[in-house]
Amino acid sequence: MGTLVLLRHGQSVWNAENLFTGWVDVPLTETGEQEARRGGELLREAGLLPDVVHTSLLRRAISTAHLSLDACDRHWIPVKRDWRLNERHYGALQGKDKKQTLAEFGEEQFMLWRRSYDTPPPEIEPGSEFDQTGDPRYAGVPVPRTECLKDVVTRFLPYWESEVVPDVAAGKVVLLAAHGNSLRALVKHLDGISDADIAGLNIPTGMPLRYDLDDDMRPTVPGGTYLDPQAAADAAAAVAAQGR
Amino acid sequence: MGTLVLLRHGQSVWNAENLFTGWVDVPLTETGEQEARRGGELLREAGLLPDVVHTSLLRRAISTAHLSLDACDRHWIPVKRDWRLNERHYGALQGKDKKQTLAEFGEEQFMLWRRSYDTPPPEIEPGSEFDQTGDPRYAGVPVPRTECLKDVVTRFLPYWESEVVPDVAAGKVVLLAAHGNSLRALVKHLDGISDADIAGLNIPTGMPLRYDLDDDMRPTVPGGTYLDPQAAADAAAAVAAQGR
Repeated sequence: MGTLVLLRHGQSVWNAENLFTGWVDVPLTETGEQEARRGGELLREAGLLPDVVHTSLLRRAISTAHLSLDACDRHWIPVKRDWRLNERHYGALQGKDKKQTLAEFGEEQFMLWRRSYDTPPPEIEPGSEFDQTGDPRYAGVPVPRTECLKDVVTRFLPYWESEVVPDVAAGKVVLLAAHGNSLRALVKHLDGISDADIAGLNIPTGMPLRYDLDDDMRPTVPGGTYLDPQAAADAAAAVAAQGR
Repeated sequence: MGTLVLLRHGQSVWNAENLFTGWVDVPLTETGEQEARRGGELLREAGLLPDVVHTSLLRRAISTAHLSLDACDRHWIPVKRDWRLNERHYGALQGKDKKQTLAEFGEEQFMLWRRSYDTPPPEIEPGSEFDQTGDPRYAGVPVPRTECLKDVVTRFLPYWESEVVPDVAAGKVVLLAAHGNSLRALVKHLDGISDADIAGLNIPTGMPLRYDLDDDMRPTVPGGTYLDPQAAADAAAAVAAQGR
């Protein structure tokens, strides 16, 4: 019916520094910009040219979309942006070093916060450095103070149904330029992954992941297809090892 | 009522090489990227933060919008793109050197093509290098084979009325990231400039030009206000001298 292309933003400054990022609006590194362009080249080589792009409201996804679309000559397609594609809000962990957090709280708590389905990190302190209250881009938005993956599924799926599905149903190639956890939330839904099994799924940066969807919006190939499978496998392993 | 900010794209590769560009989709130079970022810094310093952006379908305007909005933390605003904001189609002159064209055809013909209101350049040859026929971005669009400024006014004003005016009327700060001649077409309309006098109006690259509009969509300050007036005057003089 239609085709979905998931693209996690390229490496951000805080990916490189191994900090929890969440809703903090950090830019791409030069490596991240190269990843984004490379993602666009893969789309061009595969002849998989987006007709419309959806992004979060965060500049690492917005810049990734811009650079990858420019690289495949699709910079001119319609753009939709929405906070519901944002990364998971990491609560009080935002800005904290992953390795230090692991050392401070131990393996079990660390992995609960990072990968459990329904355990959110502690809430962000109102008025603290990375609190988004009052940010004009979230006017009228119920800005979370922390989120678990389940919370991301809850806020993302209504957007999926109302804004993305109609584009896919119209037979378009739809690019979603978003984040590790907003894309994990969607993949969990598309592939029907259990609350337990989603913990083991990691999505690498800058690697286009293709899903062809049938009339019921189910993947014709479970798990989708990375345009560069070997690079994606290597990169996903590196994501899984973060904090080590 | 509302505020309009006109921004001509930063220097493109063909601006730097002094070639007629029109609808040929050339990228910005590094200087052009810096101009775009500087334009965004001027917006930030002036507290003139766009709520929505309209761009052409050409990458030099799209990249300018992206870089300037990123520089003033407004990368997340809604985006609308339309071919009617494109540069004037330069017909058979696209890709030609301005200085050579001046030498070959003489001052009078050269200035007629560049600045007369209703004399278009010769039509582009079908199937020639820079012919856009069949470009998917213009599917359903009556792609011109050449345009004079009058043609640009004719195709731009319906977009202005139907897509931009409602944003301005809603009290928004509206950024238009576009081109020398599509912006001249709009300024001619806004300021009621005669067909003869518009020849003398040059818009510099990367310099935000602010128009506050009243209820009748007339400028409260005729000619608008450049955020950096001295730099804009110097740059406009340089545009006027092109080909010399």
